[in-house]
Amino acid sequence: MIVSKLALIGPGLLGGSIALAVREHQPKTRIAIWARREAAVMEVQEAGIADLASTDLKAVVTDADLIILCVPVETMSGLSKAIVPWIRPDAVLTDVGSVKAPVVEALREIYRNRGRFVGSHPMAGSEQAGLSAARADLFQGAVCILTPEAETDPAAVQSVEGFWAALGCSIRMLSPSDHDEVIALVSHLPHLMAATLVNLVAEQNSAALGFCGNGFRDTTRVASGSPELWTGIFAGNLPALRKSVHAMIEKLREVERLLDHPNQMNEFLTQAKRHRDPLARRN
Amino acid sequence: MIVSKLALIGPGLLGGSIALAVREHQPKTRIAIWARREAAVMEVQEAGIADLASTDLKAVVTDADLIILCVPVETMSGLSKAIVPWIRPDAVLTDVGSVKAPVVEALREIYRNRGRFVGSHPMAGSEQAGLSAARADLFQGAVCILTPEAETDPAAVQSVEGFWAALGCSIRMLSPSDHDEVIALVSHLPHLMAATLVNLVAEQNSAALGFCGNGFRDTTRVASGSPELWTGIFAGNLPALRKSVHAMIEKLREVERLLDHPNQMNEFLTQAKRHRDPLARRN
Repeated sequence: MIVSKLALIGPGLLGGSIALAVREHQPKTRIAIWARREAAVMEVQEAGIADLASTDLKAVVTDADLIILCVPVETMSGLSKAIVPWIRPDAVLTDVGSVKAPVVEALREIYRNRGRFVGSHPMAGSEQAGLSAARADLFQGAVCILTPEAETDPAAVQSVEGFWAALGCSIRMLSPSDHDEVIALVSHLPHLMAATLVNLVAEQNSAALGFCGNGFRDTTRVASGSPELWTGIFAGNLPALRKSVHAMIEKLREVERLLDHPNQMNEFLTQAKRHRDPLARRN
Repeated sequence: MIVSKLALIGPGLLGGSIALAVREHQPKTRIAIWARREAAVMEVQEAGIADLASTDLKAVVTDADLIILCVPVETMSGLSKAIVPWIRPDAVLTDVGSVKAPVVEALREIYRNRGRFVGSHPMAGSEQAGLSAARADLFQGAVCILTPEAETDPAAVQSVEGFWAALGCSIRMLSPSDHDEVIALVSHLPHLMAATLVNLVAEQNSAALGFCGNGFRDTTRVASGSPELWTGIFAGNLPALRKSVHAMIEKLREVERLLDHPNQMNEFLTQAKRHRDPLARRN
């Protein structure tokens, strides 16, 4: 898809990184960025990554052939209702949300008669947030999960797929509910566990954090993520996350029993190593 | 401490990295490395990091003024009993073990009348193991915890402190039991949680590992560590680790209840971020 005008709703880490990457790969695409606050609009202007930066939603989305919602999941529905009267009837829309089933369900209805929505989740976040952390290569090698449904326009799916692939993503398809279950396990649960570990250590022994090594630092890196953003993500994926947390508690109880059986513990750690070794860090 | 002859018992990641660092910082020190297997001796010889590499414990420790045990914690006591007749009476001995109370208790007795033992734990491991992963800068900026007791020779403590400081370590002192409690929280529990998370995800949804991003990769990096090494570490620190795992299960139950209360969840994540933010990665 050669995008003529790209509208990015939200100027954070992901919106800013998309703008930088598109500037690099598709210099002819006009980029319009919407931000809620005037201060953020000025930041975008200073960064020189957009042809138009504005708090005016209508100006940003008008004539855009691709619109990407780069905002917290709980605000996507409200913003979609606001922009739908102004978008091109054939505009392709996608998002970057970490939760899919409730987002896709709400946005499917909003864009039923105007616009063509396809859910996306580029897995390229970071514990850092905001435009200052944006990078043109953020998406290089990242998995991007698309969640089309039976009624989703196939041409729109192709456009969105081609867009992310051009930014370096490796594309995978999942249903919205499968996405949410998988991501609860590989992202939302690990995030919650990292935060829990940090708070537990601080509570059990206030001096202990002063003795941490790189193992603890890596294990808990994501706990530096934005509390507001992640509270919204957890709330949006409650059933799958609840199931994962429950399964984790049960599993830790099993592990507690393994402590008395070194041979079984060795087997358990061997199994974990076998699963973990192939997952080399991508950048 | 200007070391005349350094004996390293064990040629793995830590032994090898010490040899490389000493070669760089104290080129006049003679380095002798003991390995259990002939193949490992040959690897040391090929790496050119020792003046003597041998399976002969006596040859390696004879005349050494500093001896460092770089072997799994469960083998330290047996090796100490083997070398004690051959060491210089004033030899300073230390170790790199991740568990201290049982090691210090056993080695204190073995070296009571010959040699001066001081427990060390340089927190510079890695999920990689073996000589091939060794690096001269492994200890730069790492915390090294020393665990002297009331009866430990102060001059020996100073020597060991100076040795690690010269390799770039930041020195901290703890009692052996305080060490074990702190390290259960910031190292052993996180390791066990990483392995548990990997196994849980693989068990709950065998495809999910294919969708992991850098968050999951970092959170679980340590699960690629050596199963044998970590089984021994867990077994050596059982009471403190058991207490930590139990506390973690209780904490996750609290967190499960927070899922229904976004404001409290936001506060919980904010607290975690506040604790985690200052712990920047050291290299």
